[in-house]
Amino acid sequence: MIIVLKPQATREYADVLMSRISALGLRPLYMPGAERVVLGALGDERAIESLHLESDPMVESVKPILAPYKLVGRELHPHDSIVDVAGVQIGGGTFVVVAGPCAVESAEQMLATARVVKESGGHALRGGAYKPRTSPYSFQGLGPEGLAILSEASRATGLPALTEVVDLSDVALIEEHAAGFQVGARNMQNFRLLQALGRSRKPVILKRGMAAKVDDLLLAAEYILAEGNPNVILCERGITTFETATRNTLDLSAIPVIKHRSHLPVLVDPSHGTGFRELVPSMAKAALACGADGILVEVHVDPPNALSDGQQSLFPEQFAGMMRELRPIAKAVGKVMR
Amino acid sequence: MIIVLKPQATREYADVLMSRISALGLRPLYMPGAERVVLGALGDERAIESLHLESDPMVESVKPILAPYKLVGRELHPHDSIVDVAGVQIGGGTFVVVAGPCAVESAEQMLATARVVKESGGHALRGGAYKPRTSPYSFQGLGPEGLAILSEASRATGLPALTEVVDLSDVALIEEHAAGFQVGARNMQNFRLLQALGRSRKPVILKRGMAAKVDDLLLAAEYILAEGNPNVILCERGITTFETATRNTLDLSAIPVIKHRSHLPVLVDPSHGTGFRELVPSMAKAALACGADGILVEVHVDPPNALSDGQQSLFPEQFAGMMRELRPIAKAVGKVMR
Amino acid sequence: MIIVLKPQATREYADVLMSRISALGLRPLYMPGAERVVLGALGDERAIESLHLESDPMVESVKPILAPYKLVGRELHPHDSIVDVAGVQIGGGTFVVVAGPCAVESAEQMLATARVVKESGGHALRGGAYKPRTSPYSFQGLGPEGLAILSEASRATGLPALTEVVDLSDVALIEEHAAGFQVGARNMQNFRLLQALGRSRKPVILKRGMAAKVDDLLLAAEYILAEGNPNVILCERGITTFETATRNTLDLSAIPVIKHRSHLPVLVDPSHGTGFRELVPSMAKAALACGADGILVEVHVDPPNALSDGQQSLFPEQFAGMMRELRPIAKAVGKVMR
Amino acid sequence: MIIVLKPQATREYADVLMSRISALGLRPLYMPGAERVVLGALGDERAIESLHLESDPMVESVKPILAPYKLVGRELHPHDSIVDVAGVQIGGGTFVVVAGPCAVESAEQMLATARVVKESGGHALRGGAYKPRTSPYSFQGLGPEGLAILSEASRATGLPALTEVVDLSDVALIEEHAAGFQVGARNMQNFRLLQALGRSRKPVILKRGMAAKVDDLLLAAEYILAEGNPNVILCERGITTFETATRNTLDLSAIPVIKHRSHLPVLVDPSHGTGFRELVPSMAKAALACGADGILVEVHVDPPNALSDGQQSLFPEQFAGMMRELRPIAKAVGKVMR
Repeated sequence: MIIVLKPQATREYADVLMSRISALGLRPLYMPGAERVVLGALGDERAIESLHLESDPMVESVKPILAPYKLVGRELHPHDSIVDVAGVQIGGGTFVVVAGPCAVESAEQMLATARVVKESGGHALRGGAYKPRTSPYSFQGLGPEGLAILSEASRATGLPALTEVVDLSDVALIEEHAAGFQVGARNMQNFRLLQALGRSRKPVILKRGMAAKVDDLLLAAEYILAEGNPNVILCERGITTFETATRNTLDLSAIPVIKHRSHLPVLVDPSHGTGFRELVPSMAKAALACGADGILVEVHVDPPNALSDGQQSLFPEQFAGMMRELRPIAKAVGKVMR
Repeated sequence: MIIVLKPQATREYADVLMSRISALGLRPLYMPGAERVVLGALGDERAIESLHLESDPMVESVKPILAPYKLVGRELHPHDSIVDVAGVQIGGGTFVVVAGPCAVESAEQMLATARVVKESGGHALRGGAYKPRTSPYSFQGLGPEGLAILSEASRATGLPALTEVVDLSDVALIEEHAAGFQVGARNMQNFRLLQALGRSRKPVILKRGMAAKVDDLLLAAEYILAEGNPNVILCERGITTFETATRNTLDLSAIPVIKHRSHLPVLVDPSHGTGFRELVPSMAKAALACGADGILVEVHVDPPNALSDGQQSLFPEQFAGMMRELRPIAKAVGKVMR
Repeated sequence: MIIVLKPQATREYADVLMSRISALGLRPLYMPGAERVVLGALGDERAIESLHLESDPMVESVKPILAPYKLVGRELHPHDSIVDVAGVQIGGGTFVVVAGPCAVESAEQMLATARVVKESGGHALRGGAYKPRTSPYSFQGLGPEGLAILSEASRATGLPALTEVVDLSDVALIEEHAAGFQVGARNMQNFRLLQALGRSRKPVILKRGMAAKVDDLLLAAEYILAEGNPNVILCERGITTFETATRNTLDLSAIPVIKHRSHLPVLVDPSHGTGFRELVPSMAKAALACGADGILVEVHVDPPNALSDGQQSLFPEQFAGMMRELRPIAKAVGKVMR
Repeated sequence: MIIVLKPQATREYADVLMSRISALGLRPLYMPGAERVVLGALGDERAIESLHLESDPMVESVKPILAPYKLVGRELHPHDSIVDVAGVQIGGGTFVVVAGPCAVESAEQMLATARVVKESGGHALRGGAYKPRTSPYSFQGLGPEGLAILSEASRATGLPALTEVVDLSDVALIEEHAAGFQVGARNMQNFRLLQALGRSRKPVILKRGMAAKVDDLLLAAEYILAEGNPNVILCERGITTFETATRNTLDLSAIPVIKHRSHLPVLVDPSHGTGFRELVPSMAKAALACGADGILVEVHVDPPNALSDGQQSLFPEQFAGMMRELRPIAKAVGKVMR
């Protein structure tokens, strides 16, 4: 339920209402706005009828939340959210480039790539220590050692680092080493993992599953917010279709669809979205033009010898070129690209 | 086969080689370049061996055409093609907006919409007289009367008009009334129709089928070129996927893929690609940013009362707003938008 | 509208009502049942209100047709249809095997294959004279000569032959040479062709398009019935998905879905549905078990040298083996397989 | 590598070779056959060259394993595997029906449903205690209490029970209460979970992911076998496509494809595969006819009041009817259905 209070309602009055909502087994939310305060009540909406809020002297209106994603949707939270990743703001009019190798392979590779990202103007680092791979015989990542290397590269460059989490038992260790989490497409509906991340306060980049509708992605995000972590950044990374010219089909129309339905910031991953480095800059530019809040992109100092996803990793000079091309477009669409 | 002649080879010498290629049952092509002439030979490539071209004194090199689309691919024709639609150049660095109603409904509706397109800076008109509709009980278009109305709107505004052809028996009549043809997604593999259009010289916008890979689209275009009409413009209009938030899934990565494989210009149709007018401007901007040569977009003076596709047609003021937003992006990506 | 008459209503009375329906611009249908007569009225349902049929003394009830496919759906026509293909009944409890080569290649190939079909107990022949091919450089069929060969093979074996029609200009010639038409997946929404076939009285096998929902298929069939030809046989032949282990994904659940929604008989094409001959017998058996009225299957006397689709054509002995395996299953599910 | 020993090679000799393979960091496998012993060597195949096995006097031949799934494929293991689920054999010529409610809701519901399964001749129980749900606000299962109820229903009917595992922290508890695990489609690539199940010895039903190719499923199974648990049963449960008439598209051609590529038994889930109970019996029969080793099917004593998936759960009498229809088909295709 969305409960709009009258302008004259005090904070104390709101607290009383919230404790009454709480007493019914629903979860109360306090959302102060510019002109008036809005309360939310999450849970079985029929229970709230016993409070007769419509006739409460300090309540202006009461209406149900229509979307299945209560906290992720715009009904309770009409304004765009901004998620702070160790000082880098994602959402709210900026365009952010999170870049790095698919996997952390060695201290040299990670540091050299981080420097490339920094020099070309990237804003944050990515790099996987735990790699979910289709085959058990493929390189599975360096694990804790990879986390330490990533953390070191972050310190050396001053860029915050985000890294993939594949199991809830790794949440604490990653929290220690990285500025935020990434949840891969294959784990978008690993609900236990999402709940564990909901109990963290660090930002989570949640990638859309290969067969997930936009609404499935928003409901997956709701799992994290419902546990108390509002710092979720969505990410479109391509869906599974019949087309084989690209690794996945990047669904850029998901960006304006998400922007209509949710207040959360949204990134685009043109590397997994296309699977080929020569397509990445075009799709990065398109992502910017259609309203994405940033990109998540793979760069490697030596793509032909990358241990994973070499074909879709940009060469350093390609990354630099792409960054130069993005800036005038950012200006043309009114986005700030620091 | 691709036969590169030496710089000193004369036109007469090329003609002799071409007649020998012809005599073997293959189709010869003459392609003069800046520095040297290239000949093509289409057909059974083994037959050409009997000519021993490698040892011909005027031949520099002979190599097979690897792509299955000989005329559409970049091997024989490395430079971007420009297709002239009654004075409007599509391809080669411009960004062209072809706009109009889904269907021609009346002289008033068509003319009013054409004026909206003209005033906001659109470059060409679209409007269907023959409408392929999923149900036999839906409005099927005005037919010949619709063509006459479209032609009148074109004259009144000075904008060339393109219109959909659904059967080869209508080719002659459409040729008379319109500047070019549109082939819809459902007819992309109506090969008889494509062959009939190959015998015309008017431009053809060929839309990608709902389940067609990029290579299927290029092979469908090859049917038109193989019959002698080089004036083909490709169009990405969304593919069929599981996502239901949009009518189709607009595959913008097809744009750079097509640009790598083919010299033909390519448009994007964000109206059919998304199915909802509020998503159209975002996707139009993304199309421009990732390299499309233009868009094909639905505008209607009164979308809520449109006889077809009203939900995806822009209101006049939305169209004007989109045109204003496109111009700075065109500049940022180095495209000319007249 | 569905208008159920009272038991005592005479034929003359029904004729009067039908002429009144006709006078409103709607199409009347006369459907006598075991106990009472039902009339249909196709067209703008609001117009019929002026007749005040609810208060007509001979009318028992009036209700709208809910499905978008009026003639194809079960509302007006609850019982299964049986389509007669030159003496072979398709639908109504039989299981029919229509078999032959993908393309008619020569008199020898066609006749030899037809004999294989006949000897193993097949019920009808298939063989393409006009082949829609993805590439303009692939074998396109023998055309009229192929039709003559197919007709000769039909005479020699006594098996009726069906063949693909790709353009409405060929309808008359095919009608002359074959017992029925096949419309390929690529032409499922070639509505002009469907309308032309609706003006024939010969049976039409209508294949589901690669990206067509079941309801799209039923609406395409409605185009044929709406023009007056009730002899339509639907065919599931695989849809386009991401899976590459098979050429298409055979959607067998479409069979019970179609059976719930429509009275038309439905075949399965396990050859195109899978693309590999070793998968064909399994899928043919599954089709029989889940309620299909028959299969459309490719057999060739020499698959490795077939001019098209050799990989999915059964060897003669495989076809014979499959026929032997189908018979006990037909018995187990209560289908008659002659 | 596949190393075929000569008939005269002793077990001791094989042990020596295996320890040499082990010393190189590869994993040796011992596979005794009817006529001769085959050894496997999993890992970096180049390393093995240093052993010069081709010239070993007791080695008949050495060849690489071509498929990416070494243990799951038929190269090292040509004969069909049979997995024993507490006395019920899955694979090897039987047809097994695993049935029960989507979720364990209460002791009464579970026990009543288990009795229905038993009385109609079902062979094993299913019932979820941990439910992965798209929305955080949907019923998430009874957890440990549900496991205890399921275990009780198993004891009461003598039918072994399988239940879904959603996180590796629950593996031990489920092992205690159930005869085997089920991994849902959303977790097919939750590789940590798969590895944990690979360290169990209890059978695992691994469901195909919504966007997973058959080869992705086989590679996911390889994760379990590579950790040492050979008791894997695959399950086709429908893939994500554009069709909306069914919840998913049941890809039955995956059954013969899997049978060609892998020795593991494979079930079909017609409940999730279609989403509607009226389609379930048809698809169960088709699954049997095309070679599946059994089905996994939802039954509920009161589907309209089920807490999840009621629409796809069979009524008890539908389940009984389906069982009666399956038996004659099993006989017709040569499968034993106890």
